Amino acid sequence: MAASGLVHLVTGLANREPPRGFSDAEYESRVTRAQELMAARDIDVLLLTTEPEVRYFSGFLTQFWQSPTRPWFLLVPASGKPVAVIPEIGAPLMARTWIDDVRSWPAPRPDDDGVSLLAETVAELGAASGRVGVLMGPETLLRMPLADYARLQGAVPHATFCDATDVLRTLRMVKSEAEIAKIAHVCGLASDAFEALGTRVEVGQSLREVFRTFRIALLEAGADDVPYLVGASARGGYADVISPPGDNPLEPGDVLMLDTGALHDGYHCDFDRNFAIGQADDDARRAYATLYAATDAGLAACRPGATCADLYHAMRDTIAKNGYPVGNVGRLGHGLGMQLTEWPSNTASDTTELVAGMVLTLEPGLEIAPGRGMVHEENLVVREDGPQLLSRRAPPELPVVAGQG
Amino acid sequence: MAASGLVHLVTGLANREPPRGFSDAEYESRVTRAQELMAARDIDVLLLTTEPEVRYFSGFLTQFWQSPTRPWFLLVPASGKPVAVIPEIGAPLMARTWIDDVRSWPAPRPDDDGVSLLAETVAELGAASGRVGVLMGPETLLRMPLADYARLQGAVPHATFCDATDVLRTLRMVKSEAEIAKIAHVCGLASDAFEALGTRVEVGQSLREVFRTFRIALLEAGADDVPYLVGASARGGYADVISPPGDNPLEPGDVLMLDTGALHDGYHCDFDRNFAIGQADDDARRAYATLYAATDAGLAACRPGATCADLYHAMRDTIAKNGYPVGNVGRLGHGLGMQLTEWPSNTASDTTELVAGMVLTLEPGLEIAPGRGMVHEENLVVREDGPQLLSRRAPPELPVVAGQG
Repeated sequence: MAASGLVHLVTGLANREPPRGFSDAEYESRVTRAQELMAARDIDVLLLTTEPEVRYFSGFLTQFWQSPTRPWFLLVPASGKPVAVIPEIGAPLMARTWIDDVRSWPAPRPDDDGVSLLAETVAELGAASGRVGVLMGPETLLRMPLADYARLQGAVPHATFCDATDVLRTLRMVKSEAEIAKIAHVCGLASDAFEALGTRVEVGQSLREVFRTFRIALLEAGADDVPYLVGASARGGYADVISPPGDNPLEPGDVLMLDTGALHDGYHCDFDRNFAIGQADDDARRAYATLYAATDAGLAACRPGATCADLYHAMRDTIAKNGYPVGNVGRLGHGLGMQLTEWPSNTASDTTELVAGMVLTLEPGLEIAPGRGMVHEENLVVREDGPQLLSRRAPPELPVVAGQG
Repeated sequence: MAASGLVHLVTGLANREPPRGFSDAEYESRVTRAQELMAARDIDVLLLTTEPEVRYFSGFLTQFWQSPTRPWFLLVPASGKPVAVIPEIGAPLMARTWIDDVRSWPAPRPDDDGVSLLAETVAELGAASGRVGVLMGPETLLRMPLADYARLQGAVPHATFCDATDVLRTLRMVKSEAEIAKIAHVCGLASDAFEALGTRVEVGQSLREVFRTFRIALLEAGADDVPYLVGASARGGYADVISPPGDNPLEPGDVLMLDTGALHDGYHCDFDRNFAIGQADDDARRAYATLYAATDAGLAACRPGATCADLYHAMRDTIAKNGYPVGNVGRLGHGLGMQLTEWPSNTASDTTELVAGMVLTLEPGLEIAPGRGMVHEENLVVREDGPQLLSRRAPPELPVVAGQG
């Protein structure tokens, strides 16, 4: 009943592919907001090194980040457009974004892989004796060699390097309608692929074959890529929710779970589905129903002004009331967007206040018995009047597939 | 002629799927070699935070690294087996590796995301006043928040953190036969998929559709995943070799290039193929023939004792002799393995000596005219008597596909 008022966005709407990329106006607005937050924190320039952050302000989208060889830098000054300091190989692609000032060097050049060019640019942007904001906080990393970071600090000895995690976290947690449309679209594609999968799995198929079938189904449905696909199939439930597939065949009584982060135009879905193979025992049915009810409770608690901790407690209480311990995942959902998982986390200690435009997963999990559990996951966007589901909701009862009859 | 004596490994042999994983003996040998190198450099414990390094010593293989939320640590002590310090969610999977000592905490826990447990373990492994080796050099990064790294240093105030890049670089550059078999296998799968692609592309197809078709063909051929697929299609050549596909249709006179890093059991191929759409102009044919000859020259120069710079010069000289500038890629090939690109680089300044067991790409590129170029790529393993191709060699003349006939 908690979920009865929810709009299911997916059908129809989400399967119309939204336009690729973003308007220049959207990038301008991101930069302006960043500069307001920088001013309030006395940050003179943001130094960004990671794929989502560089892309967030520039639109630079490429799988070339898979190669660890070359560092990439985007500088957001106190005013004006960002400046890219990147390897030559990326200059033609960056020149096609809204960024005007693209500086490059012939990387790889290990004895000076952009460091001197970066230091010059930091100084030119007015931060030679100022504060350079770098991501240092939870869920971040510095994507450049530590030794080069030390060299950079040496090359601008009067600059102070400070933590800018808060700036990026604040901005990126709240999605624009254009971002939401991309996530909704890929959620719709994955919902289609999950429904199709239920009709295709068979007793005796190896889990590896199921993964391959599902990955192809996602691509055929229209996903650009499937960077994340994990899952398990085990009798009455599973313990391990992050594994690649083995060659174990699906057996009657297994619970099969697949969890996917598919991509559309650089934005992820992240949800799973559970299937009983051939038959479902009472334990598995009851665990499933509990997680469905926990998701209902999470949805009911989800509105602007509530906190992530509220979502956590709503789901956890439902799980506990039914007599289960929560699983080993460490949280019951998280932010979602350019990355498979983003700030915030649905944990007891995360008091982040929900704001309209946040895209979140609800991911209640429980332990049926030691080493055997179950996880549910749905994706939603927080709206002024409550949650709007982006994934097409899982069925209320554990679906049985690959039946003999 | 230079390439005439080469064994083409792919046919038959490489398409038999090698066993998954590695023997415990292989992990033991990796750890023993690491400990020898550590002893020579006076390193008491290696602190590893990145996916390939953690996997190299443990066998821990999961796509969960896509989530940036949680840090993962593997410690290699001066003697004995590595110790894993990881989030609870990963403990069941790590317990299935050869690692015995798995310590975990309920991550995410931003106020102490494994830092105190890690510090305790560093001390217990004898490095409280010793030297902790961390990757700081070219092509590396630290995959934990900078603020947590500072906290860790504060928690073991008498330890010295030093650069261990050299240890990992030395070890990982030379592949075992089991590693080579995995790379050879995925090279064979991609060779099959490229050959099939040539028969499937059509004038008018969008580049996005070609990408989707090829990604699916790779999965159908048996690849586990396709984390890297870039390319271009443009009249007589292309400038940008790292882009995602657009909606532009293939047109007669285009040169279509696809470059893929597909995966088998955590190991990559990385090579491209070029196709002329409908017809090939003389410029494109001559550029293709030049790159084929440059690859021949690279193969001829490739033997133990030669250097990466020798490979670079052999390829570059052939390109220059034919009157072309090299492209904007910055190097003419690189190492290959668990990562799409690894040390070393075929550049004028990389004097790494080739050793039997190194897996490399030869990647000559040139500029036909400003903003228009071409790139070739092949994968090989260095053997005592010269190179052994792992990719099935591209045809010597630019293949024309999607003809009207």
